[in-house]
Amino acid sequence: MKDILLICALSSGNEAFALDLNNIRIVLVNTSHPGNIGGAARAMKNMGLKNLYLVAPKDFPSGVARGRASSAKDLLENAVVTETLEEAIADCSLVIGTSARSRRIPWPMVNPEECAQKLTTEMQGSQVALVFGREDRGMSNEELQLCHYHVQIPSSEEYSSLNLGAAVMVLCYEIRKSFLRLTETEPSQPRFDEESWDRELATVQELDSYLAHLEKVMIRVKFHDPDNPRQLLPRLRRLYSRIRMDKMEINILHGVLTTTEQALDNLENKEG
Amino acid sequence: MKDILLICALSSGNEAFALDLNNIRIVLVNTSHPGNIGGAARAMKNMGLKNLYLVAPKDFPSGVARGRASSAKDLLENAVVTETLEEAIADCSLVIGTSARSRRIPWPMVNPEECAQKLTTEMQGSQVALVFGREDRGMSNEELQLCHYHVQIPSSEEYSSLNLGAAVMVLCYEIRKSFLRLTETEPSQPRFDEESWDRELATVQELDSYLAHLEKVMIRVKFHDPDNPRQLLPRLRRLYSRIRMDKMEINILHGVLTTTEQALDNLENKEG
Repeated sequence: MKDILLICALSSGNEAFALDLNNIRIVLVNTSHPGNIGGAARAMKNMGLKNLYLVAPKDFPSGVARGRASSAKDLLENAVVTETLEEAIADCSLVIGTSARSRRIPWPMVNPEECAQKLTTEMQGSQVALVFGREDRGMSNEELQLCHYHVQIPSSEEYSSLNLGAAVMVLCYEIRKSFLRLTETEPSQPRFDEESWDRELATVQELDSYLAHLEKVMIRVKFHDPDNPRQLLPRLRRLYSRIRMDKMEINILHGVLTTTEQALDNLENKEG
Repeated sequence: MKDILLICALSSGNEAFALDLNNIRIVLVNTSHPGNIGGAARAMKNMGLKNLYLVAPKDFPSGVARGRASSAKDLLENAVVTETLEEAIADCSLVIGTSARSRRIPWPMVNPEECAQKLTTEMQGSQVALVFGREDRGMSNEELQLCHYHVQIPSSEEYSSLNLGAAVMVLCYEIRKSFLRLTETEPSQPRFDEESWDRELATVQELDSYLAHLEKVMIRVKFHDPDNPRQLLPRLRRLYSRIRMDKMEINILHGVLTTTEQALDNLENKEG
C-alpha cells in the first residue's frame, strides 16, 4: 500500500490525513461474462483501487473470473454483491456512470480526465462510485438517472463499443493519473469547491428522500400528475443531482416542503 | 473512416494533407495467449488504429483471438506476421517500446501522454511503431535497444503487471486523445456541458426572479422570517447558482411554487 497511502498536511490546519483511493468504488451492473469481472479486478488493482461492487452479476463467483483477475483475486474475494444499483451506491455522495449512447434527456457529461478529477477530489471527504453497465446494453435510463454525471470514453465512430474490462482499465488509469497529481508535493493543483466546502455533502439516499418529499408535495398541490408524469421527475432528479448539495442545504429544502405541508394542513383543518 | 480522415491545413503552409492514424502500427512480440491478440485488436479499432504486426506469435491465427477481437476481426485478418522485431519495424522512423522493468542501461523514458504525442506528431511524415513485449517477460534487452524511447504506464507498486490487452488499450487511448487534439479545428474550445445541453440556460435575471418567488412562498408558509433571516437566502442563492439551470428547469420550479400558492389560495378562499 506504500504507493497509495501518504500523509498530507492540510493547508488549513495542523491535522494530517491519509490520502488513498479507498473511498472510490467500481460498480459493475449485471455483468454477463465472468472474464470481464476478472479483467476489471486486475485493472483496478493495477491502478491501486480495491473496492469492487457487483450488482446482480450473472455468473459469480467463477473460475473464469479468478483466472482473468490473476493476482487481483483478493478484490474478487472482497467484492460486495448487491441486488440493485441503489444499494451499491446508497452511501455515496458522488456517482458517475459510463454511457455510450446519447439519451433522450441530456445529462451532465464529463470526459475521462474530468471524471477522474471529480472522483479523486471528492473521495477525500466521502464515498464515491464509478458505475459500468451491461456488456450489451449499458445502463438503463433509470440507472443512468441515479448518476450525477455521465462519462464517455472517446472512441472511433467505426467501432465505439469497448470491452468492459478495457473501459474499466481506461477510467481507472485516469483515476490513477489524477491521484498521482494530487499527491505530488508541488502545489498548483486545481482546487475544487467540494474540498473547501463547509458542510458534509448529501448522500444519494438523502437526495432520493428529498426528491420523494418533493414529489409528494407536487402531487398534493396538483403540479404533478402521476398518471401523466411527462419527464418531470427525471428532469428534477437531473437538476438536483447537478448541484451536489450539502446536508444543510438539503435540510433547508426539506424545511420549505414541510412548512408548506403544515400551512396546507392548517388551512384544511380550519376548513374542516 | 470518417472520424480519422480529415483534411487539415498546415499552419506553416498552404498545402493540405490527410491526417489519419494509418501510419501508426502496434507490434506485439512473441505473444503467448491468442486472447490477448484479440483484445489488442479490439482496443486498437476502438481507438481508430488498424495496423497490427505480430512478431512470432505462439498461437495465431486462433478462434480465441477472433472471439476476443469481436468486431475487430478485420485487423486480425490484415495483421502482418514477421519472424523478428527488426523486420516489423524496418521501415519506421520512430519506435517506442513498452517497458515495465527498470533496465541495466537507462534508456530515454516517456510517459503515456508523451509517447502518444511523439507518435502522432511523427506519423504525419513517416511510419511509427509502438511495441509490446511478451506477457511474462516483456521485451529482451536487445529488443528494447531497438527502440528510440521506452514508455511506462504508471501503476501500483503492489501489482504493476498489466494484462497485455489492457496495456494496448491505455496507450491507444492516449494516442486517440493526442490525435483528437491535433485534429481539433477550433483551437482549445472549452467543451463544457452547457454546449450540448438541450435547452437554453437561464439568465441571472431569471434566477433572481425565481429566488424572489421562492422567498415570497417561504415567507407565506412561515419557513422564512424576514426579521430573522439567518443565512437562508444567501445559502439558497449559492445552491441554485451552482446548478446552472436551463429555462425549462426554472419554469418547472416556478410551476411548483405557483401551484403551491394556488392550493393555499383555494383553501383560504374556502375558509373565508
